[in-house]
Amino acid sequence: MAELRFDKGGGLLPVIAQDYKSGEVLMLAYINEEAWEKTLATGKAHYWSRSRNKLWLKGESSNHVQLVKEILVDCDEDTVVYKVEQLGGAACHKGYRSCFFRHVEGNKFIIKDKPVFDPQEVYNK
Amino acid sequence: MAELRFDKGGGLLPVIAQDYKSGEVLMLAYINEEAWEKTLATGKAHYWSRSRNKLWLKGESSNHVQLVKEILVDCDEDTVVYKVEQLGGAACHKGYRSCFFRHVEGNKFIIKDKPVFDPQEVYNK
Repeated sequence: MAELRFDKGGGLLPVIAQDYKSGEVLMLAYINEEAWEKTLATGKAHYWSRSRNKLWLKGESSNHVQLVKEILVDCDEDTVVYKVEQLGGAACHKGYRSCFFRHVEGNKFIIKDKPVFDPQEVYNK
Repeated sequence: MAELRFDKGGGLLPVIAQDYKSGEVLMLAYINEEAWEKTLATGKAHYWSRSRNKLWLKGESSNHVQLVKEILVDCDEDTVVYKVEQLGGAACHKGYRSCFFRHVEGNKFIIKDKPVFDPQEVYNK
């Protein structure tokens, strides 16, 4: 049985969402056991929102759902990679393709990407 | 100033180590502020070992050091990607190139890779 070690993360484990074609890391989010089971059952990435304290179907507001093509698990069974097809072309709520749209240069964060959508339009419908 | 939100992770934030050429996700580990500063200062990936409760230069036992080529930061400043050159060809203490050497098929974990080194030889010197 594919049992993750939710006990090691106090009930929550990190998931790395990675573009299944390009390998770009899109975001990191957390799952509890319910989110894990929903993801396996539906093929759509579900997470546990730590800020809203609720189960979260990625894309439920933006329609930017993540279709899970493959799942990898690490040697300690406490971290997971979802290889996903990111619908809408963007994972980040700030409108960027990836949440990792800045790189560190010296002691500054420099934006390296252009936004794909305008968050005002997508979320304030 | 490139300030990470260590307060959000109770002092520890996750880092995704990714191969700087292939984009393969190699491992996930954690940093505290000291590990972050050591990484920036030396260009070698430092982490905080949660199991040993100490600062950890990746490769200090195995010589499989990670040279950090680029650092990305996410929209919430609470997760980091290290794009690394993995010396020794393997990040996982079990001898695999990546800690994510298994994928989930149905309700089983299936090994998809071959080990690069024998952990007995590398760690029990």
